[in-house]
Amino acid sequence: MKGSYESTICAPASALGGAISIIRVSGDDAIACVDRIFKGHRSLAEVEGYTLHYGTVIDTDGTPLDDVVVSVFRAPHSYTGENAAEIACHGSDFIVSRILALLLENGAKMAAPGEFTQRAFLHGKMDLSQAEAVADLIAARTAAAHRVAFSQLKGGFSRELAGMRAELLHLASLLELELDFSEEDVEFADRSQLRELVEKVLAHCEKLIESFRLGNAIKNGVPVAIVGNTNAGKSTLLNALLGEQRAIVSDIPGTTRDTIEETLNLDGMLFRFIDTAGLRQSDDTIERIGIERAYEKLSAAQIVLAMLDLTAPLPVLRASAEEIASRVTEDQQLFFLLNKADRVTPETVAEARKALPDRPVYCISARTETGLDDLRHALAATWRDPGTASETSLVTNTRHLEALQNAASALRRVREGLQTSIPSDLVAQDLRECLYHLGSIVGQVSNNEILGNIFEHFCIGK
Amino acid sequence: MKGSYESTICAPASALGGAISIIRVSGDDAIACVDRIFKGHRSLAEVEGYTLHYGTVIDTDGTPLDDVVVSVFRAPHSYTGENAAEIACHGSDFIVSRILALLLENGAKMAAPGEFTQRAFLHGKMDLSQAEAVADLIAARTAAAHRVAFSQLKGGFSRELAGMRAELLHLASLLELELDFSEEDVEFADRSQLRELVEKVLAHCEKLIESFRLGNAIKNGVPVAIVGNTNAGKSTLLNALLGEQRAIVSDIPGTTRDTIEETLNLDGMLFRFIDTAGLRQSDDTIERIGIERAYEKLSAAQIVLAMLDLTAPLPVLRASAEEIASRVTEDQQLFFLLNKADRVTPETVAEARKALPDRPVYCISARTETGLDDLRHALAATWRDPGTASETSLVTNTRHLEALQNAASALRRVREGLQTSIPSDLVAQDLRECLYHLGSIVGQVSNNEILGNIFEHFCIGK
Repeated sequence: MKGSYESTICAPASALGGAISIIRVSGDDAIACVDRIFKGHRSLAEVEGYTLHYGTVIDTDGTPLDDVVVSVFRAPHSYTGENAAEIACHGSDFIVSRILALLLENGAKMAAPGEFTQRAFLHGKMDLSQAEAVADLIAARTAAAHRVAFSQLKGGFSRELAGMRAELLHLASLLELELDFSEEDVEFADRSQLRELVEKVLAHCEKLIESFRLGNAIKNGVPVAIVGNTNAGKSTLLNALLGEQRAIVSDIPGTTRDTIEETLNLDGMLFRFIDTAGLRQSDDTIERIGIERAYEKLSAAQIVLAMLDLTAPLPVLRASAEEIASRVTEDQQLFFLLNKADRVTPETVAEARKALPDRPVYCISARTETGLDDLRHALAATWRDPGTASETSLVTNTRHLEALQNAASALRRVREGLQTSIPSDLVAQDLRECLYHLGSIVGQVSNNEILGNIFEHFCIGK
Repeated sequence: MKGSYESTICAPASALGGAISIIRVSGDDAIACVDRIFKGHRSLAEVEGYTLHYGTVIDTDGTPLDDVVVSVFRAPHSYTGENAAEIACHGSDFIVSRILALLLENGAKMAAPGEFTQRAFLHGKMDLSQAEAVADLIAARTAAAHRVAFSQLKGGFSRELAGMRAELLHLASLLELELDFSEEDVEFADRSQLRELVEKVLAHCEKLIESFRLGNAIKNGVPVAIVGNTNAGKSTLLNALLGEQRAIVSDIPGTTRDTIEETLNLDGMLFRFIDTAGLRQSDDTIERIGIERAYEKLSAAQIVLAMLDLTAPLPVLRASAEEIASRVTEDQQLFFLLNKADRVTPETVAEARKALPDRPVYCISARTETGLDDLRHALAATWRDPGTASETSLVTNTRHLEALQNAASALRRVREGLQTSIPSDLVAQDLRECLYHLGSIVGQVSNNEILGNIFEHFCIGK
């Protein structure tokens, strides 16, 4: 396996279309490979790491291709831990393609997606959870998502796991000792102390599992459903909420609007809106089916915004509010939005408020954008930003979640084993399984299939 | 003016969406400005130019924002000629936005499009035609367009213009000498020698003007019209020609397909296809108008591909061929394409060939993609690649073309003046005008309006 990672790989590392493009090269032969197509003041073979070199890339026919600046990194002081070079050329597709072709002619091969980061992992520059954080960091669109990814990249999560593993290894060593003397039927390990330790690690594990709800919301956005009758003003509200946001986003050059079409960044937290079909009070069987589907979507939300039309008759408004409230579970948050406040009297609003079940109520006009700031603050306040002061890391990755769930299951079997005097060797087996799952998160145990799954979702050049 | 160019500017220099993003900073305070948001092994204030520094960008609240590598350049050894720094961070929109915001908080301002290159020009790192070549180089999509732009960037065109200006300045100095002694009515300058010099420079000027036809084709693609009756197989041919090309292009990650939808790169030369409505033999007045429009588009092409349907009756085929041939001018190249060769006998093909006017004929089947390689070679051969051996530069820029045309007009007046013994001071006036126009190309004479027009079309970060 080592052999294949001594080869030299290259790839464009910046997106095409800018003023400057970066081509990344890594591997034993990386600097020599670049030197073969580069003409500068002196050979790159002689230069130190962490230096820049201005010169010209020469094409196969001897003609100059582009003026470039080459960054040289020497192993192990590089991203991958290998010899590496980065060529900064003019941001032209043609030039980037030609330089890559020249590198291929000179012994490099095209890097697979994520291969640079995979090599960084294989050379011990980072563990697996840190490598995964690189992809999360690049994808992070809010301050909260960025902070979680950066903390993971810097090893916060890894250190926490290492602490848990150390405690479990201590436990395992005590159990192993007992095993060695099992024929003498001696219990070296104080089983109540062992149980205490297991409880502690299991609690930690469960806390991390629990954190996935917040972690996932931070990474992918808090799901918010806007439900209500067809003419209640649902799309007007969504457009009003997104309007300002869209303008902000389109100021950043190159941002693809498609991907943020229905998400909203409020105080650094991402909210993801779920489109539900308009509801309608109906006795028609076919129509009820459509409405049921809307309620199914509602059930996937963390926050439900119930749009109520103040211009509708009070009984209709009350029925709609009660119907929605009856569908919302304890885990979900429900806000009543009394819309079209600009078109009714204060008395009507007061009557409507009285008719509603006991949940937070916001009186708004989506059309005139009145009362939306209060709503935005209310949405933002639903998720306390854990900030940097949170005690434990947040789990954002489903692979980590599964490993933690498996580890917790194994730990529960260990706990049971210790309680019911099951033989130590069986307990030790469960403990090893728990260690295996925790170790798989940081890549202490891994296989090619796992690595392939992780890195194939990276972008080229990372 | 100098004052405003001492300010420090920043901008993203790579497109958003890659593994790495580059943020460029330039100006007196550039290195200090980056140092204020950067925490590395040592202060950037101390480090030498052309060195790289690994460290962390710290956000306003003291939390780490991202691990970055900073390139440091010290004036005048940088792209702009100023102090400069480039921050390579993880390729995340969020991180790039935050780093730019931090730089703005620390005294930098956002760069206008092309402002880095404009500063390079104002600091004498390149002349104006070289600065314009930067934008052309980034936009170049073929080997030919790249070579022309790179040669211009490296000053090939500038040197040629400098040679012409030197000759004209010599001429001017002789005329000035004559002027100083004009009251004594002495002719110091040998007017026949002067005329010879003017002829030489004028010929050079005209050669450059003439080169625009090729230069423009290289830069923007050779316009090719495919014309023919509606069912002659026009779109099948276009798809067949583009099909392979598209596959090649889509192999390069990030390439936008839209922009190449109807262009074809053949042997490093760009061909741009003009869509024409299908033609039909018709006596209907309205229909004739539509057909006239197709012929108008045909007239904009350099190359006309006349698609003829071998399965149509011979008189129809002959009429179509003659009609198209009658519309093609001497400056245009016409190829007859006998299509659907797979569906007729060799005798039919032979008869069709005999019925055609004397122009190159290619017998093809667009559907089965037969004979297309010959056609591709024929298209590629219509434009001799001038290569690196061409004597003069190629003019690709309409601003340069206009300046050369103005210079040539002034030179013709100089020639006339010398022939008709017009007073030297009037001849000298025309000569100065000619020098002015040639000087405007490289920016020896320029004003803010010209500069604004040139640089506002650059991308941000260049």
